[in-house]
Amino acid sequence: MQNFIYHNPTKLIFGKGEIAKLGEYIDKRVKVMLLFGGGSVKQNGVYDQVKKALKDHNTIEFWGIEPNPKIETLRKAISQAKAEKIDLFLAVGGGSVLDGTKLVAAGVKYDGDPWEIALKGYADRSADYASVMTLSATGSEMNAGAVISRGETNEKFAFFSSKYPLFSILDPQTTYSIPIDQLANGLSDIFVHVLEQYMTATGQSRVMDRWAEGIMQTIAEIAPTVLDNPNDYETRSDYMICAALALNGMIAMGVTQDWSTHMIGHELTALTGIAHGATLAVIYPATLSVLKDRKKDKILQYADRVWRISGGNENMIVQKAISATESFFRSLGLKTRLFEYGVGEEIIGEIVERFAKRKTILGENGDIDAAVVKKILLECK
Amino acid sequence: MQNFIYHNPTKLIFGKGEIAKLGEYIDKRVKVMLLFGGGSVKQNGVYDQVKKALKDHNTIEFWGIEPNPKIETLRKAISQAKAEKIDLFLAVGGGSVLDGTKLVAAGVKYDGDPWEIALKGYADRSADYASVMTLSATGSEMNAGAVISRGETNEKFAFFSSKYPLFSILDPQTTYSIPIDQLANGLSDIFVHVLEQYMTATGQSRVMDRWAEGIMQTIAEIAPTVLDNPNDYETRSDYMICAALALNGMIAMGVTQDWSTHMIGHELTALTGIAHGATLAVIYPATLSVLKDRKKDKILQYADRVWRISGGNENMIVQKAISATESFFRSLGLKTRLFEYGVGEEIIGEIVERFAKRKTILGENGDIDAAVVKKILLECK
Repeated sequence: MQNFIYHNPTKLIFGKGEIAKLGEYIDKRVKVMLLFGGGSVKQNGVYDQVKKALKDHNTIEFWGIEPNPKIETLRKAISQAKAEKIDLFLAVGGGSVLDGTKLVAAGVKYDGDPWEIALKGYADRSADYASVMTLSATGSEMNAGAVISRGETNEKFAFFSSKYPLFSILDPQTTYSIPIDQLANGLSDIFVHVLEQYMTATGQSRVMDRWAEGIMQTIAEIAPTVLDNPNDYETRSDYMICAALALNGMIAMGVTQDWSTHMIGHELTALTGIAHGATLAVIYPATLSVLKDRKKDKILQYADRVWRISGGNENMIVQKAISATESFFRSLGLKTRLFEYGVGEEIIGEIVERFAKRKTILGENGDIDAAVVKKILLECK
Repeated sequence: MQNFIYHNPTKLIFGKGEIAKLGEYIDKRVKVMLLFGGGSVKQNGVYDQVKKALKDHNTIEFWGIEPNPKIETLRKAISQAKAEKIDLFLAVGGGSVLDGTKLVAAGVKYDGDPWEIALKGYADRSADYASVMTLSATGSEMNAGAVISRGETNEKFAFFSSKYPLFSILDPQTTYSIPIDQLANGLSDIFVHVLEQYMTATGQSRVMDRWAEGIMQTIAEIAPTVLDNPNDYETRSDYMICAALALNGMIAMGVTQDWSTHMIGHELTALTGIAHGATLAVIYPATLSVLKDRKKDKILQYADRVWRISGGNENMIVQKAISATESFFRSLGLKTRLFEYGVGEEIIGEIVERFAKRKTILGENGDIDAAVVKKILLECK
């Protein structure tokens, strides 16, 4: 096991009816900016719940944070927040709204253009922020990370805030009205978050392996019900909690991590607009296929424990595990090949060129360069 | 899944050599009381590491916190700390030293006799405290709980601090010199911590079940090496991390909990001095045996997933799971019957009378009264 520091101070408030208590977690003396997406919270009642809970608080509203939040939008929120001297930023929505909120909270403490924070990869300072989540998947509700896009240049970069969310309120009932394709993307995102932290080498930590496998087993078990039965509270609960646990540090203690698929997926989203979770379903099986030799021992463990694959020689089991992974994504209704999205040589070439130009090296061993990225993209074309 | 709040702000600092960085985590302006047990930290080098790391800090020392820390000892530390105006209390040792430190940190903020905090079950206020752990097992390094004994009356009560440890430093190398019987008690304690949060009803949270099972599988796998090969860093790492994860709230999200065995075990320790982990190895199989009908579904899941028991009808599988649990404790070299400790009718009667007098009701359904406690104690006599 590698040395590590685990420190996650976010208060996770979970369960039906908890949004009504929101006011208890915010001092009445602070000025709050509520940040929203496109308006689904008005249809599903979450907006009304939040406004009612904060009726005695000093709040202003900022609307219009889009999926893959754009710096162009967030700059406006930062200007407004600076003018209004906001103390606390409360994201009400899904992972994109919260990611955007993290950039806004950091941006009000930054003198230059806030896009520089995304380019740098971290914020030195941040105002306080918190969330009421409606669509879980990204894990943003319990970590300091965020991914920000720039429309002008079709770029997408991750950065880490200096602060974690003060609190995040998760009521599984808020997911009842989420469209099925967004849920499918969410399940894909959660599953691949776990794989990025798990699918490296064996023997680093027995208990971290078990916990990662436990989330993947759970996601595989609940996926059909999550997609078919929108009002099943118990599976929505496990869905929401798995999203948070998959990327809050709890399965990352002392183990190496990969994240190649995410980095490639981010470029694909930036250039084509394909939803994040959907890009992972395409890229991940190809990543596994290209890297199957160096990840062989872990793939065998994954095959046995997550998919209960047995029989055949090791190479056959590895192949079955890769197929099972792709089949899982397809069972969610997701595409797993680039051509299905009309993505061809041109986009592949552009992505590879971006990695080559930036000299990006990916993977847990730091050996995934632009040439390997090209192999992965050709594998799933 | 039940509603819950998860909030654990402790910074966990893990790995070889991390004690050397201790000074970085403590402001030089604060006055620190270092609290120790009986002196093993002087033999294993931890004392020297701590003193070296804090050579530029303002520290005083308090020695002699015993296993099952006694209020009589802790009162002395509180008097000294009040006189010296201590800001931060740093436990250096195992779970008992840290439990005692929690009471001392709360006691300096309390005007009455600090035993009242243990009787009340919680502290309203506390000074800051942190730990350098040498013997993991109790999970005290990452929670707010502590168990305090009173020698004058042979009583033992748990209380919750108003604060979590600021940080806990865990270097698996510090466990290399721990005597084998203490390690066995620790493994028993970790395993039963998980069972107390797991062995209730099925279907509350799939992922919490998987995480609890993951810790138990890990403990069962590593136990032989932990006991036989004291210098195996990897298994000691999993041992230490499992101890922290078993009782820091991470496997308790949204699920009911039992804790009957712990409550009975505390009385046994208070009256006989048998080590805590050793009492659990005696009581737990008996608890399972007496409560097997109401816990049947979960025992069947536990049998399948933790012990891979299959074949036979449900009652046979339940019986095999109870036997496997007792066999596991015996494989650690622990006794599993009261008579092996010379404990007979008199002590059993005294424990039952204590529960009857206090009208204590235990268990996840609040239906374990003194009569059931008596059945459990007779089952393992």
